[in-house]
Amino acid sequence: MADTTGSEKPKAVVLLSGGLDSTTVLALAREQGFLPCALTFRYGQRHEIEIDAARKIARATGVEAHVVVDFDLRQFGGSALTGDLAVPKGRSADDMSHGIPVTYVPARNTIFLSFALAWAEVLGAGDIFAGMNAVDYSGYPDCRPEYIEAFERMANLATKAAVEGQQRVRIHTPLIRLSKAEIIRTGLALGVDYALTNSCYDPAPASGAACGQCDACLLRLKGFAENGVADPVAYVK
Amino acid sequence: MADTTGSEKPKAVVLLSGGLDSTTVLALAREQGFLPCALTFRYGQRHEIEIDAARKIARATGVEAHVVVDFDLRQFGGSALTGDLAVPKGRSADDMSHGIPVTYVPARNTIFLSFALAWAEVLGAGDIFAGMNAVDYSGYPDCRPEYIEAFERMANLATKAAVEGQQRVRIHTPLIRLSKAEIIRTGLALGVDYALTNSCYDPAPASGAACGQCDACLLRLKGFAENGVADPVAYVK
Repeated sequence: MADTTGSEKPKAVVLLSGGLDSTTVLALAREQGFLPCALTFRYGQRHEIEIDAARKIARATGVEAHVVVDFDLRQFGGSALTGDLAVPKGRSADDMSHGIPVTYVPARNTIFLSFALAWAEVLGAGDIFAGMNAVDYSGYPDCRPEYIEAFERMANLATKAAVEGQQRVRIHTPLIRLSKAEIIRTGLALGVDYALTNSCYDPAPASGAACGQCDACLLRLKGFAENGVADPVAYVK
Repeated sequence: MADTTGSEKPKAVVLLSGGLDSTTVLALAREQGFLPCALTFRYGQRHEIEIDAARKIARATGVEAHVVVDFDLRQFGGSALTGDLAVPKGRSADDMSHGIPVTYVPARNTIFLSFALAWAEVLGAGDIFAGMNAVDYSGYPDCRPEYIEAFERMANLATKAAVEGQQRVRIHTPLIRLSKAEIIRTGLALGVDYALTNSCYDPAPASGAACGQCDACLLRLKGFAENGVADPVAYVK
């Protein structure tokens, strides 16, 4: 819980992809007494639907500020999300056994958190919220608690505000040990409108409907099913 | 010294700003047996002269690859290099006593190293070279050895290649404890053509001539003078 005894609530930078997890984190940051400043990246995704979802969520929830930073990870290659590889359908035994999904984007969370760190310092904020999750996506190395702790430690040596002692950096990852069902339950209790979110890796180009078959769709559908609630987003029939 | 017993030398990502320090580092990486892959950023600098210098240096030295990544740190504000503050002329007592120069860009080196980490993983490389220097620029927190060590530790928890044990990440900062004069001496011994480099924070728009008065120019001129060598770049008369 942030100190809200003063007249002004503290700002926090919240990584907002437009997906289910980051939208839940945005609601949690507000619940904990922060003024959320949402940060979204256009980094060579294969569709703009994520960005559009982030903009709608930022507007609907009334964030303090929303910045979309552009860069192109396709210059480096190396991932299904940004390159030419096909997005895998379904979660095969092979996907699971090798641990790290082919949709992994090299150093993505490190890049995202680095920009968040820059903006936080400019805002005079020390708190950064991010939706990393080590349960359902345990294959991503940059979603694990030990990675987050190492990033936080580095961040506190990196910035003028931290080094001068004005502002200690804290990386909040409130979802890191929750299952998808628990994340959805948390968000529903906070009144999150999941109809605005997009989780699909491969949505239909015209309608934006989720494919219902990729890894992210399957996890999401399972999470809603476990809560006995219908997922409010549209799926391809 | 890299293992060069195989037929193929290992690749290394080298941060190349087009300045004196990074150009020296590029030569050192090659000297140590690596194939340099140069990485430059266009991040809302106030002039394109840095980028042009980096391109010329990459071409002249025959790097393995050169990528220029674009993003705009002006979206965040907060620095003379990317915002509307005037670049300070001269090194006043005030500049020095407060430790951290106003030309500081929040989290810049963290962002740069994060992109380098992403590209290194795609290249199958573990070595990243950067020109941070803690002597003449001790005011920048993200130029200190303890920061670099913390980044390296984080990086080894961040990527698939590191976590799977294929490729340990090493951040090489060979200039970190050298004076500007020692850096120039090192580069001259390696045949670096410093005429191609740009260090000035505020070059003349038309000619590209260095101002000779900003912090970076003064340090550079002093370094050449201490070597008894004329700086080959043009200065405003």
